[in-house]
Amino acid sequence: MKAKATRTAILDAAVELGSLRGLEELSLGGLASMVEMSKSGLFAHFGSKEELQLATVAQAWDVFEAEVVRDPRADGSQPLSALVERWLSFYERRIFIGGCFFVTSAVQFASRRDAVCEALAGAVRGQTAALEAAVQRARESGELAPTGQDAGQTAFALFAILVNADAVFRLQDDPAVFERAREAIGELLHEPESARRAA
Amino acid sequence: MKAKATRTAILDAAVELGSLRGLEELSLGGLASMVEMSKSGLFAHFGSKEELQLATVAQAWDVFEAEVVRDPRADGSQPLSALVERWLSFYERRIFIGGCFFVTSAVQFASRRDAVCEALAGAVRGQTAALEAAVQRARESGELAPTGQDAGQTAFALFAILVNADAVFRLQDDPAVFERAREAIGELLHEPESARRAA
Repeated sequence: MKAKATRTAILDAAVELGSLRGLEELSLGGLASMVEMSKSGLFAHFGSKEELQLATVAQAWDVFEAEVVRDPRADGSQPLSALVERWLSFYERRIFIGGCFFVTSAVQFASRRDAVCEALAGAVRGQTAALEAAVQRARESGELAPTGQDAGQTAFALFAILVNADAVFRLQDDPAVFERAREAIGELLHEPESARRAA
Repeated sequence: MKAKATRTAILDAAVELGSLRGLEELSLGGLASMVEMSKSGLFAHFGSKEELQLATVAQAWDVFEAEVVRDPRADGSQPLSALVERWLSFYERRIFIGGCFFVTSAVQFASRRDAVCEALAGAVRGQTAALEAAVQRARESGELAPTGQDAGQTAFALFAILVNADAVFRLQDDPAVFERAREAIGELLHEPESARRAA
């Protein structure tokens, strides 16, 4: 039990450091000084830098999943608008202190084609899949007008606006970006005329 | 003249390495072995890692500016649709071999508040400003319907879709993402009903 609690505490610090400095700079040495453990003490929990990076991505996904994706309603009927608002709020409250590193790290790891790259790409796929499923449900429940448009297409545009809102927020340090994002999403979800004509 | 050509050749390699591995990993040593120069030979051109990183961002911006932003028409009348198409084509042709690192690197450098972070943020501001000016011109020329919507709002959504297209392309290695991006942009530029009502 204690080992598990220690592991979780280490990984919470690793997510913080990874979001601030990038996953590549997440070394056992740097993390050890942050959590005030010896490097060999840390090594007992994670045998290599790669193992640590993979566990950090998994921990970050668990946090994102609990805060954003997992439906708080027992019947799985969370509206798309609620999912999107929780997502923006996740960025706005800086739950990952240095920004959400799934996409930015994944792009920087993409050319390596290693296990860390695959874990990051898996997290990004998980994010996109959650949005696509919510769009699909919103069409079925009447939250969104039925349309000829593919749910994946709507999810693609939503994902772009959400992720970019976090990136711009980190760069400009101005929460006004979230109002821009909400307006853009509002317009996106009022189905455009072209799609309504096709329906 | 020769020194300038050498400097440009070094920086072309630096942009390539930076886009593949991230700007933080752009060290004089790593770059020296890539361009088959001694580390001290490289040091004659760039006195420090930071100086090299700053010159690399400037070189990357020059390339992006020439390929995408600079208006090829003498009268400065490049339509918004042409700008957006050149932008997507820039990503599609992998001009930066590992992906466009302005946004991804800027987010990773954001917490440092140093000169490299400021240079990257400046490049991102330059990209957004180019889009906003093109949206403004498109409203004035009639390419876009006049609307009550702020040009900055339209530019925000366009920027999100463009940058995300490159990120997803790098992750999934599938050029089909550019069709999604073109469809999303096409719908965005058919002004939504809400904006038309406001006009």
